[in-house]
Amino acid sequence: MIHTNAADTTASHGLLHDHASLIVHGPDRPGIVAAVADVLRARGANIVALGQHSDNPAGGAFFQRTVFHLPGLSAALPELEAALHHVVRDELGLTWRLRDLSVPLRVGILASRSTHCLLDLLWRQRRGELPITVPMVVSNHPDVADDVRFFGIPFLHVPSAGAERELPEKEMVGLLAGNVDVVVLARYMRVLSGKFLNDVGVPVINIHHSFLPAFIGAGPYRKARERGVKLIGATAHYVTEDLDEGPIIEQDVVRVSHAESVAELTRRGADVERQVLARAVLWHCQDRVIRDHNRTIVL
Amino acid sequence: MIHTNAADTTASHGLLHDHASLIVHGPDRPGIVAAVADVLRARGANIVALGQHSDNPAGGAFFQRTVFHLPGLSAALPELEAALHHVVRDELGLTWRLRDLSVPLRVGILASRSTHCLLDLLWRQRRGELPITVPMVVSNHPDVADDVRFFGIPFLHVPSAGAERELPEKEMVGLLAGNVDVVVLARYMRVLSGKFLNDVGVPVINIHHSFLPAFIGAGPYRKARERGVKLIGATAHYVTEDLDEGPIIEQDVVRVSHAESVAELTRRGADVERQVLARAVLWHCQDRVIRDHNRTIVL
Amino acid sequence: MIHTNAADTTASHGLLHDHASLIVHGPDRPGIVAAVADVLRARGANIVALGQHSDNPAGGAFFQRTVFHLPGLSAALPELEAALHHVVRDELGLTWRLRDLSVPLRVGILASRSTHCLLDLLWRQRRGELPITVPMVVSNHPDVADDVRFFGIPFLHVPSAGAERELPEKEMVGLLAGNVDVVVLARYMRVLSGKFLNDVGVPVINIHHSFLPAFIGAGPYRKARERGVKLIGATAHYVTEDLDEGPIIEQDVVRVSHAESVAELTRRGADVERQVLARAVLWHCQDRVIRDHNRTIVL
Amino acid sequence: MIHTNAADTTASHGLLHDHASLIVHGPDRPGIVAAVADVLRARGANIVALGQHSDNPAGGAFFQRTVFHLPGLSAALPELEAALHHVVRDELGLTWRLRDLSVPLRVGILASRSTHCLLDLLWRQRRGELPITVPMVVSNHPDVADDVRFFGIPFLHVPSAGAERELPEKEMVGLLAGNVDVVVLARYMRVLSGKFLNDVGVPVINIHHSFLPAFIGAGPYRKARERGVKLIGATAHYVTEDLDEGPIIEQDVVRVSHAESVAELTRRGADVERQVLARAVLWHCQDRVIRDHNRTIVL
Repeated sequence: MIHTNAADTTASHGLLHDHASLIVHGPDRPGIVAAVADVLRARGANIVALGQHSDNPAGGAFFQRTVFHLPGLSAALPELEAALHHVVRDELGLTWRLRDLSVPLRVGILASRSTHCLLDLLWRQRRGELPITVPMVVSNHPDVADDVRFFGIPFLHVPSAGAERELPEKEMVGLLAGNVDVVVLARYMRVLSGKFLNDVGVPVINIHHSFLPAFIGAGPYRKARERGVKLIGATAHYVTEDLDEGPIIEQDVVRVSHAESVAELTRRGADVERQVLARAVLWHCQDRVIRDHNRTIVL
Repeated sequence: MIHTNAADTTASHGLLHDHASLIVHGPDRPGIVAAVADVLRARGANIVALGQHSDNPAGGAFFQRTVFHLPGLSAALPELEAALHHVVRDELGLTWRLRDLSVPLRVGILASRSTHCLLDLLWRQRRGELPITVPMVVSNHPDVADDVRFFGIPFLHVPSAGAERELPEKEMVGLLAGNVDVVVLARYMRVLSGKFLNDVGVPVINIHHSFLPAFIGAGPYRKARERGVKLIGATAHYVTEDLDEGPIIEQDVVRVSHAESVAELTRRGADVERQVLARAVLWHCQDRVIRDHNRTIVL
Repeated sequence: MIHTNAADTTASHGLLHDHASLIVHGPDRPGIVAAVADVLRARGANIVALGQHSDNPAGGAFFQRTVFHLPGLSAALPELEAALHHVVRDELGLTWRLRDLSVPLRVGILASRSTHCLLDLLWRQRRGELPITVPMVVSNHPDVADDVRFFGIPFLHVPSAGAERELPEKEMVGLLAGNVDVVVLARYMRVLSGKFLNDVGVPVINIHHSFLPAFIGAGPYRKARERGVKLIGATAHYVTEDLDEGPIIEQDVVRVSHAESVAELTRRGADVERQVLARAVLWHCQDRVIRDHNRTIVL
Repeated sequence: MIHTNAADTTASHGLLHDHASLIVHGPDRPGIVAAVADVLRARGANIVALGQHSDNPAGGAFFQRTVFHLPGLSAALPELEAALHHVVRDELGLTWRLRDLSVPLRVGILASRSTHCLLDLLWRQRRGELPITVPMVVSNHPDVADDVRFFGIPFLHVPSAGAERELPEKEMVGLLAGNVDVVVLARYMRVLSGKFLNDVGVPVINIHHSFLPAFIGAGPYRKARERGVKLIGATAHYVTEDLDEGPIIEQDVVRVSHAESVAELTRRGADVERQVLARAVLWHCQDRVIRDHNRTIVL
């Protein structure tokens, strides 16, 4: 009964044949834009989008994202990468990465009992809104198994073990490492260890149900009610060892009043959470997000 | 050269002839709405707006704001107040207050060097957007004297005295107490003592340049830049002895990105600050705000 | 195969045992609030929410929504309704309606090929966010059958017949009339006749994918792109015989730029559409919306 | 008594010493970014901001804004402009323009009786938020003379002459042409002729008090009230001969409800109008806006 809609073409997922994105960042100096553009022009690539940021005079750092179209991209990649290595790294002393935008990113999702963020991502993926595949959903609760499998996606149950997290984390690393390019915590309610983050080897994105840095930790909607705030929010961020302190990718808020109970704040916040998370996942998978210490540059 | 615009009628300031607002709050019980409405009906008053809130089942508290039209209000007030005292306080055990909405509230403004919130309030007052008069502006800096006096409003300079705040506060209390119904801190950069709050004897409203409870204290835009948030905000709240911890009246935010410097955040935030403060002052002066411990009910 | 979640209690759908909402509207006059409150007090009902609006001096119309708690509501209803009939209609000359808030509204959904609004409503219903049941989904396309039946909801296929709409509309009326309390057009792409609206006998809510009255009719995202607007929106409204001209219940917008293609506007707009429609359905089913000629009062 | 604040340095108005912006647009083709960057690199210019847009595959047009820092810019300009002419126009077949960002734009403001947009621009200019000077304010009403002259800005009264607009427009052209770089209509309530637009010889920016294309023409707040919309807005656009049909620079909205009268919509809309206009003027004066037929690209 499951169905990958036959009409879901590559294009409809935002995947772009023969397109790539190139991120360049490092210490600013004159001539970077020209040098990168020369490398691309020399190979017949046409730049179709270019975003740039420099934090001068404060920081002296340069960030650039270039999307280009190059017919026969796959065949041309090795030579292009060698040229970028030579020019961008060796000559300019900058860091670079290149992503083939015709290839979807593999997103592993961790979930608990709440389904609103999880299902929102799965529906968006199925409707072709996200340039991703979802190889697996891992959860510490079996409740969402049927919902996930409806999409034809493997559901894997890794029970929590109380305060002990070494074994379940090890099991999850075994499932995820090598099989996914990014891990998304779709309201996954367990704190992950530094060891897990290191071993899984890919970026981990979390959605926190408050406008960080307000209401760090558990129960943000209850805290918001107690403090009497007039807006509630959600924050998508990269996960680091410091709880709710990682680089923020995206945030948004919604207006509330004295009239909402904690349950109503939770319901209204859920709408914000899933939208914020979806935007963060989209931008990450389009390779638009550059980490700069504890901040992000979104180009 | 000044100019009270002759066309500024009472109505254009949101002042309403023969109208009053009645706030009733206390422990919830059946029959409150009917009892209050009966008192008003018996005197020929017509209810033109009614807002109500009860925090059941959690709290058991009842809040109501009723605006009514009663021809010959001034003459009828003593008898009406006696009836409310009898019914609302004695019989129902509730707190009440009544405000004649044809009388503007007297707002004393405290300022420092920033003018955006101060001048915004003065322009709104002059344009007839606020049901207020401004008997005086008090500042610890002389810079804004000309700007204030352009509006025909007395400007009073009370210099700060370093860490010592007893003398300047005493001087300000001498100027304000009895002459104003509310004090507004329009980016006034000194922390006020509990003694000042007590002695001035009226509510004090502050605008804080962050989305509280994020970035309490000094330098919120710098902190926002460092944390890499994607929205910045402003919070209007009643002042208590605990810095930035008083009941929140209104908040709002504006989207920012990695590209804004602290100076740009400050400029963009200024737009939010003045709007949030103007809304809070308007609502306070329409007697729409009820304090409930450390939260507000805005009806 | 699916699953009405056993934990879905009445409360979790916003259904309120022994609670009712009472709408009263008509020509304004002193004493309405008191008269209505007296009727409720006399029967031991406790008012838990009260919203009021009068459009004086312009219109002279009065609108009130009262939510009250009355233990043993079902048994008390006949006598209460008789009293309201006597006091509100006969004595005050006003219109009234009463809804038992422990009973979910039956919502029939009409859909075409787009699923984002349809599935959003079904997920919200299943999560307990909406006080509704969905007795059936009717579509002129068979594509969404599996998705709908996954929720355990009957899917009924009524094919379009080209320009001819009499027969399909007759068939839909046969399915819907008497079985649903409101019809929601979740991006249903056929214009319904006045005869259908009359025969189906219940309110019909539509979501239009523009910020009405801008971009009436077909292709609003294409028109928005051509006009170069910087915000796109969605509008939920009651359906009348005049296309896209019915009373607006709710609207919202999202910021866009020159960079978005029509396809991207469509994707971003979809998020707004489903949120606006969900709010409109929620408010309608809480009986918070009063039609006043071609406008709505939402209390 | 008037005071240009001595602390208002060039930098505080967003003016950037030795910086220029370069706009390039025309038919897209590979190599544009590289060619432009090469011209700049060869002269030692450092690119500090770069925005780019191409409307492929639909349109085939390319747009780029580059901000660069070049020590000794003034002296280097003639040679740089010659190089750009050669490379960008002759070789690439594109249009280009260059603006020295250390020079403020001269903004002439036309006003009528409303002051909120006019004074907002003047205060922002004085606070150093806008990279502009205001050589004159021209109005068909004398009311705002004192307010304008408070800022030390010449106020010129050009009375309307009923339906006849040839003479007043001729007089205004005589005042403005050659003396200003852009004309801003700050709620100026007369329709300008094509002849005026042609003769004044600079771009004209208008603020319309609705979310265009909704509510074109007079009385948009009254129309908004009648249609029962739930959001009201404002639109800043370049003026063309077709009323309210010119290219949109910026728009924004604010939430309203059934409860607001036309007067209240007008007051709330005023806040949106002035913010939208200020953003449009800022972006225009930073040379961030490119007209593309009836749309704008804001980079």
